[in-house]
Order: sequence, then structure tokens, then C-alpha cells
Amino acid sequence: MIDRLCIVGVGLIGGSLAKDLRRLGLCGEIIGCSRKREHLARARELGIIDAYYLDPAKAVEGADLVVLAVPLGAMAPVLTAMSPGLGAGTVLTDVGSAKCSVVEAARSAFGAVPENFVPAHPIAGTEHSGVEAAVQGLFQGCRVILTPTGETRPEAVNRVRHMWQAVGAEVLEMDPAHHDQVLAATSHLPHMLAYTLVDMLGQMEERVEMFRYAAGGFRDFTRIAYSDPQMWHDICVVNRDVLVEALDRFQENLAVAVDAIRDGDGKTIKEIFTRAKALRDRYAAESDPS
Amino acid sequence: MIDRLCIVGVGLIGGSLAKDLRRLGLCGEIIGCSRKREHLARARELGIIDAYYLDPAKAVEGADLVVLAVPLGAMAPVLTAMSPGLGAGTVLTDVGSAKCSVVEAARSAFGAVPENFVPAHPIAGTEHSGVEAAVQGLFQGCRVILTPTGETRPEAVNRVRHMWQAVGAEVLEMDPAHHDQVLAATSHLPHMLAYTLVDMLGQMEERVEMFRYAAGGFRDFTRIAYSDPQMWHDICVVNRDVLVEALDRFQENLAVAVDAIRDGDGKTIKEIFTRAKALRDRYAAESDPS
Repeated sequence: MIDRLCIVGVGLIGGSLAKDLRRLGLCGEIIGCSRKREHLARARELGIIDAYYLDPAKAVEGADLVVLAVPLGAMAPVLTAMSPGLGAGTVLTDVGSAKCSVVEAARSAFGAVPENFVPAHPIAGTEHSGVEAAVQGLFQGCRVILTPTGETRPEAVNRVRHMWQAVGAEVLEMDPAHHDQVLAATSHLPHMLAYTLVDMLGQMEERVEMFRYAAGGFRDFTRIAYSDPQMWHDICVVNRDVLVEALDRFQENLAVAVDAIRDGDGKTIKEIFTRAKALRDRYAAESDPS
Repeated sequence: MIDRLCIVGVGLIGGSLAKDLRRLGLCGEIIGCSRKREHLARARELGIIDAYYLDPAKAVEGADLVVLAVPLGAMAPVLTAMSPGLGAGTVLTDVGSAKCSVVEAARSAFGAVPENFVPAHPIAGTEHSGVEAAVQGLFQGCRVILTPTGETRPEAVNRVRHMWQAVGAEVLEMDPAHHDQVLAATSHLPHMLAYTLVDMLGQMEERVEMFRYAAGGFRDFTRIAYSDPQMWHDICVVNRDVLVEALDRFQENLAVAVDAIRDGDGKTIKEIFTRAKALRDRYAAESDPS
């Protein structure tokens, strides 16, 4: 039970979490915080929060759990702004898609990584954003990765784990750096490729036809290019070292494949495709809900 | 009405087309042809074909419509093999995913592109292949691109158009070279990227985790890497000049994006992402069934 929950950044993720915790009777009062008063007023109208403050330090005062759900680019200033108000016993967690940068932002805001800070990443979302898009059950069956640091108290980790399990998520733990590496390869890199491909087609003369005749595979492949450009910009900037490593590796692999096609080296092409299909077949069964 | 239909290559596409034409009462006798007797025997057991020949020249004899549904890599030898049997009035069409190479194969097999040859590409399929995977209604709502050459008789085009419309497809016309360019960018290139990405993850030490923690976006993005490696190998080989051009262009675009990330040039990153999302939003409405 959370007596006083504070959601800093009442958008799709923060709003959906508040909705579920309220519906399940797992929290008392819910305090919202955001840069924009009209967003907060709307969240209160929708019954997602009970009260709100524009000042993060005021908002977090007296909370037993604070969920930081602002864009990655806003983590550092918001952590700094909330630090004067955060109680020593308050558990703090976040929902950022990259973890090392948030840990660093916390270290710099508080002088050290607070022992009650539990960096977390719920792998969930829709192509919509904002509090109006908040829905019940968003986290049902999704994965949440917790990335505690050496400083994090196990009790704080447990509290955050239970919160996510209560709303239906499967909770995993991983080192922050390892998280960033895995997500760079499986999420940040594919987004870069999809955005780059769609942007490239847009530059071509035949662009209307490109989109008109595109088959189902193309739609699946580029669906992630629907995502919020600001959010993905933030992710690419904060996780850039690891992402650039993954991109370099991808470019090398792609160059091998392109050379094989250029040279008519069918053997190499078929080897790449066959290995990929075998892997997809092997791992798809456990990860594909479809 | 087709009195005698010949399907050369009775797999997913050829078999599904035969099923639909039979069900709709649009053809009399259906003759199958394939390299493998056991496939043909199975197709007859399933009621998809009435009779079969292993020799393409025998199979096409007396047919009023021949549908060539063999892998791209087999088009040239099969066209050459069927040429002695093909009647002057027989309409010939194919289902290959690249068109210029099939036109060239026909030119070389017959000495000139036959005036009754209508190159075609039904943009349809599932991740399965073979006659056992043939289903009714596969072409309902899908697009079929016809790519007649300067030599093609309009009556032959109409006959093939009506066949595809009868099984529920939307039929379009395009120049063969233009088709190959559009499909290289919207289909062959994305397949290359998905195969390359999955293969790259397979080389990484953390590969089990890579697939375990991959989010929905990754699954959508790499779904096309489920496709048949031999078929995509053939496509990449026969359409290689156009595909390499598209890949070169993609590599250039990707290099710009990677440099922007490496340099922390957030403005360029956001511009790419924003342009891509705007295009996806603009064209998705007309092309996305979801």
C-alpha cells in the first residue's frame, strides 16, 4: 500500500500507472507534478490525480513513493529541482528508456545515488502520448527491467518490484550498463533504422508510390517510425555512446551483406538469411505473443 | 473462364490461386507442374490440381492460361524448358517478386518477349511455403502489380487482370524497371535490414537476452526475417543492381544519422525523426489496414 504517491510527469506511462494503482486500491492520495498547469488540471479532471504542484520539491514532500516519468532529456533538471523536498525514506523510481544517464543525473542532483532510488524501465507504450492517452491495463503482461546500482537498498527494490507486479508486469533485474547495451541493440537501433528508411523514401521522387505499393512487411517494419520524435531524440542523445557502438557494428554487418549482393555472392547472402531465420525461429516462440 | 489452367510451381502462391479459381468456378481442368513428383501427387490428393507433368513443355500444352509460380532463380530454366510446348495463343503470366529479370529470362527463352506474356507480382504471402500452406482467400484485398512490356498484347493483360480481380486483388500496372525500383526500396531493402539486424544480434554474446528482452517494436521490425531465405536470396541476386543502389542510398542516409548521434547533434536527429513520423502519419492512413 502506498499512502501518498507522487507522479512527476503525468503522461501516458505515469497516468496509466496511476490509473491502475488507484483501480486496484493500492494507493491513497496521488499527487501530480508537471511543467504545464493545464496538463495537471486535465489529469485531475480525469480523476487520475487528486492534487498537483508545479514545483517538484513541493510535489514530492511527504510522498512514500515518487515515480519520475518525464522525458529522458528532463531527468537531470527535474531531479535537481525535487532534491530539496525528497524525504530520506521516500522511494524514488523512474521509467526512462535508458538507465545509465538517469543514474548519473541522480548522482549529480543528490551528490550521490540515493539508496532509495530504483532506476526502472517499463517496456510498454503505445504510439500515443500524453495523459489523455493513459489507459488501464497498459502494463499487463509487459516487462519491467529494474536496474539497481550498488547503492540501492533491497527494500526499495522490493517496493518498486511489487508495484509493477501488482499492475501485471513481469519484473526483471539487470545492471544499468547492461540494460543500455541490450536496449540499444534491440530497440534504439531498430528505431534508428526505421526512421532512416522512411526518411530516405520521403526524399525519393517516387515517394507517393513508395508508400502506396508498400506491402505488409514494410508496414510492420516501419511501424516504430510512428513513435514520438522528441522521445526518441532524447534516447539517442543520452544513450549515444552505446548506441553508436551498436550502429557501427550494424554498419559493418550491412557492408558485408551489400558487398555480397554487389558481387553476386549468393552463398554469403544465403548464409546471413539462413542464420537470421534460424535465430528468429528459435527465439520467437518464447518472445512472440502472436 | 479458363478451360485449361496450368500452374507451374504448385506452392503457396500457385496452390492458393488454383484453390480460389476452382472454388469460384472460374476454371475447368487444372494441370500442375513441378520438379518434384511427390509435391504434385500431394497437390492432386488435396484436390488443388487434376493432373500433372514433370516436363514443363508437356504441362503447358493446350493450356489457355499458364501461371509460372516457381522461385525467381528457376524462372530462366523453366521458361526455356516450357517453350517447345507453349501454344501461340496461350497467355503466360508469372508471380515473381522482381520483374526485369523475368522479362529478360522470357526474352532469352523465346528469342523475344512473347506478346502473350504478362509479367505480374501479387504482393501476398505468409511466412509459410509449399502446397500444404495454400489457403483460400490469400489474395483478398492484396495488390497485384502487372508490368506489361512494350510487346505485351492488351487482351493478354486484360485476361490476367480479370483473373486477379476475380480472387479479390486490386490490380495495378507499372513499368517493370519502375516496379523493381519501388519494391527494392519498400520490400527488398527492409528484408535485408531485418535479416542483417537479427544475424548481428545472433553474433553478440548476450544473444539470449537480446531476444528475451526485445520489445514489441523489435518483433514487428524483424517479423520479415521469418521469410524463406532461399526466396529472398533469389530476389537479392536477380534484382541486385537496383537493390545495391537502394542500399547505397540507405547507407549514406544512415551514416548522416550516425554522425549526428556521435556528435550529439540533436537538431539533425530530431529533424530526421520528425520528417519520418510526418510521412508515416501522412501515408499510413491510406496504406495501413490496421
